[in-house]
Amino acid sequence: MKKKILITGAEGFIGRKLRKFLIAKKNYKVFSTYYKKKITGLGNNSIKCDVRKIDDIKKIIKKIRPHYIFHLAAKSHPTYSFKFPLDTLNTNIIGTANLFESVKNYSSKTKIIVACSSAEFGSFSKEELPIDEKFKKNPEHLYGLSKLVQDLLSLQYFKMFKMNICRAIIFNTSGSGKNFDVFQDFKSQIIKQKKNKTILLKVGNINNLRDFSHVDDTVTALYLLMQRGKSGESYIISSNKLEKISNILKIIKKQLNKKIIIKKNKNLLRKYDEKFIQGNNNKIRKLGWSPKKNLRDIVKDILNEK
Amino acid sequence: MKKKILITGAEGFIGRKLRKFLIAKKNYKVFSTYYKKKITGLGNNSIKCDVRKIDDIKKIIKKIRPHYIFHLAAKSHPTYSFKFPLDTLNTNIIGTANLFESVKNYSSKTKIIVACSSAEFGSFSKEELPIDEKFKKNPEHLYGLSKLVQDLLSLQYFKMFKMNICRAIIFNTSGSGKNFDVFQDFKSQIIKQKKNKTILLKVGNINNLRDFSHVDDTVTALYLLMQRGKSGESYIISSNKLEKISNILKIIKKQLNKKIIIKKNKNLLRKYDEKFIQGNNNKIRKLGWSPKKNLRDIVKDILNEK
Repeated sequence: MKKKILITGAEGFIGRKLRKFLIAKKNYKVFSTYYKKKITGLGNNSIKCDVRKIDDIKKIIKKIRPHYIFHLAAKSHPTYSFKFPLDTLNTNIIGTANLFESVKNYSSKTKIIVACSSAEFGSFSKEELPIDEKFKKNPEHLYGLSKLVQDLLSLQYFKMFKMNICRAIIFNTSGSGKNFDVFQDFKSQIIKQKKNKTILLKVGNINNLRDFSHVDDTVTALYLLMQRGKSGESYIISSNKLEKISNILKIIKKQLNKKIIIKKNKNLLRKYDEKFIQGNNNKIRKLGWSPKKNLRDIVKDILNEK
Repeated sequence: MKKKILITGAEGFIGRKLRKFLIAKKNYKVFSTYYKKKITGLGNNSIKCDVRKIDDIKKIIKKIRPHYIFHLAAKSHPTYSFKFPLDTLNTNIIGTANLFESVKNYSSKTKIIVACSSAEFGSFSKEELPIDEKFKKNPEHLYGLSKLVQDLLSLQYFKMFKMNICRAIIFNTSGSGKNFDVFQDFKSQIIKQKKNKTILLKVGNINNLRDFSHVDDTVTALYLLMQRGKSGESYIISSNKLEKISNILKIIKKQLNKKIIIKKNKNLLRKYDEKFIQGNNNKIRKLGWSPKKNLRDIVKDILNEK
């Protein structure tokens, strides 16, 4: 019989890509939860669920008793957390605890891969990079804190109840279909000026340095953790390459073959923002993963998406 | 005009004592929130409030705009957290975030003293003791984790929004009126046998070592933090004395002047329990506090309470 996989938050950016990847494998029966927008083409395997409500998630776990869960349901944008701190804390912290309690009580052997975030770490100086799994976590905003608590809860449920929980610490991930990130911001400005020879781009802080992964690589990493990730452990998913935001602009220029004028805009500066983020991916590489795509692939994917 | 103080969770053990202490000072207008049992004799200054509900707490902050808040509302027993993990996480984490958001939006200058706990630290070896404010926090159970998150939230709201939040890390506190602790457990057994010459006491692990403060000392420490505690800082409130649980039995024996037979009982052993807890109280001593009572005073208070 096919093993059952449940993806929470399967309507999100990574969730959608992971779902397609797992369905294509044909070895699994894939169930998906959505919060706002029903996922079409999945019939009964697409289930409405608000993780903040214990009854919603309990019912699903009790019924499906999945072999594996990818817990992706979250409010996953720093900017959203500035406006809606309570919703972010409730969804990410209580939502995760609701899931763990349901699994503990009704499906205790299920392996859970929890999506944590590089935002847990906060800022380090360039000299200290790359960040590895043992670095001190000192988040700079409430989104980062909410993800740190997911991480702490995962460890606690592993330690206290011997639950099979493995943490994926996901660094910046992009690709076609992503919303609200720097790539999409540039792209949406480009679309509006697509007939012009010269494109004017308003930018925030383009000197910040980031570690970008293509979502296809993030998905294969998550799948590997499902197969080989150790309970109680966390694994950084990152490219381990430090790229200046301005480098994205150079690649866009080359791929578009147009003149680009850059204009700094104060409104695009974030008040709370990590200056440098770079993740050491040695630990997950040792399980047999390596990224196959680079920054150029991300830009290409996004410029080409319809 | 008298300055206004709000105590959340004022029906609890420390809350009750703190309220009496502050009312006796006569310099303050003291407001109290309760969750289950209305506090009598306070008229309109006793307000029902479920901190898990943002509207409850928002309404109170908006109306009172207190100068000071002691945030004591919490599910504060490790054992309760084993049975009711979600209630513990919701009350302690979301309840605290609800308070901070309400203060941020409606009373941003209020100084908040947040009751954190020694349970945040988890276990250290005897050689590493006493624990100070900089020790790594690695809680052993969900109650400890929930208190750690209160602590992290306090720091985050201080850093992000410059809120006036000071953390009290309270170690074991007892005295008359305390429920569900080792002293009360011994006392309730003694009451049942009060006519006997020999008293049989069932005990758990009496070799664990703890740092016990008398609640009167804890109250003066909290009051001092209200006056002099620095925003963004945490202060350990402890006796800095390491006492074996068995030492309590010796004191009881002396004070009762009866023969006591001790019987170990497996059911009284906790599965998740810190072996040693001892807090370094140097930081709060530097503000001008020192404990005035000792273990004998705690036992005396409890044996004499009606």
